[in-house]
Amino acid sequence: MAEVKLHGARFSPFYHRVKWALKLKGIPFEYIEEDYSNKTPQLLQYNPIHKKIPVLVHGGKPICESMNIVQYIDEIWPHNSLLPADPYERSVARFWVTFAEDKAISVFWKTLQTSGEEQKKAFEECLEMLRIVEEHCLGEKKFLGGDNINIVDIALGSIVHWLGITAEIAEFNLFEAEKFPLLHVHAWIKNFKEVPVIKENLAERDKTLAYIKAHREKTLGSS
Amino acid sequence: MAEVKLHGARFSPFYHRVKWALKLKGIPFEYIEEDYSNKTPQLLQYNPIHKKIPVLVHGGKPICESMNIVQYIDEIWPHNSLLPADPYERSVARFWVTFAEDKAISVFWKTLQTSGEEQKKAFEECLEMLRIVEEHCLGEKKFLGGDNINIVDIALGSIVHWLGITAEIAEFNLFEAEKFPLLHVHAWIKNFKEVPVIKENLAERDKTLAYIKAHREKTLGSS
Repeated sequence: MAEVKLHGARFSPFYHRVKWALKLKGIPFEYIEEDYSNKTPQLLQYNPIHKKIPVLVHGGKPICESMNIVQYIDEIWPHNSLLPADPYERSVARFWVTFAEDKAISVFWKTLQTSGEEQKKAFEECLEMLRIVEEHCLGEKKFLGGDNINIVDIALGSIVHWLGITAEIAEFNLFEAEKFPLLHVHAWIKNFKEVPVIKENLAERDKTLAYIKAHREKTLGSS
Repeated sequence: MAEVKLHGARFSPFYHRVKWALKLKGIPFEYIEEDYSNKTPQLLQYNPIHKKIPVLVHGGKPICESMNIVQYIDEIWPHNSLLPADPYERSVARFWVTFAEDKAISVFWKTLQTSGEEQKKAFEECLEMLRIVEEHCLGEKKFLGGDNINIVDIALGSIVHWLGITAEIAEFNLFEAEKFPLLHVHAWIKNFKEVPVIKENLAERDKTLAYIKAHREKTLGSS
């Protein structure tokens, strides 16, 4: 098997997407931790356009962009498939991956980069985003992928887990159990984090919380 | 063959991406022109999240988001393939599709929604975006896909054609032949628009120009 290396950063939801995909497939890999303020020359060479983690290096060739990497992994190692086999179902899964990349990530950044009233508004937008997921994607299924997690759980689960921690810091109740519509999203994210491979490979909550707090203090002067 | 319908808008680059993919595959379809200010109930039902064109309806089932639709078309009708067969090359193609969706579309909107100095800056950003395409994706190839057009030509060609028209209205020389680095991009977009299926299915330049002018006058009070 060609050598597999992964450049990542331990508190990044984007790195975790790729780590989860590799672990779900049981693919061994060498991990290279990147320092955002002092990236390795290899990372800059492998991803000259965006200069960002994660980058997967397979047999010496780099693949960039987390959800693109997850699709590549699914094509190279097709067991425990992450995309549905049916072309229509695949198109539905890709629609939600795009939704995660556009809508979910955009509101996620807003919650990280704002404070006070502005941050509250950003969390309200998150709730709206989650309501859309609940109504149009999740329904009463256990996972976004159905009985098992798939690429949509990976794309959105990473963001929603991190959102939950940011919400905790901001004392915003993102998963208000009383609000009926989000009951299912609440159950889903719990189910997702109980999948053994996800549970064993989730960034530690306390350390992630401390990291986000420190990052906010540095960039905003507040947590 | 299941019935194929396409909801679009004749001056939209996003609709053209799907139209080109269907025409390149030789798939007959029924076209439904949508009016942005009075969308059909079908469109709103088929795309409840974004309420946007294009929507492809295949055998009664809707597929949304232009590049997602193009991938679906390529999976359902695999002849004249639009994505490379090799998984690594596919990942590279998907990387550039994502680049088109993020970077290229974002600067494209900026050029449409600004005027004066701000618009000039937006076009400078477009040049920078095109330089990245030239250096890292195109090189000296005829098409972004190599000897034949592929999904990356469709994703970027649509945006760059429309950008050219917006630049013409703003009297900004987007393809300055004297500027060496963009010589290849200039040749590529010319080659692309000479592919018979693209040429025969390109929104008419004069009408598109008039449409963009009218749109800018309405929204900005300037063209």
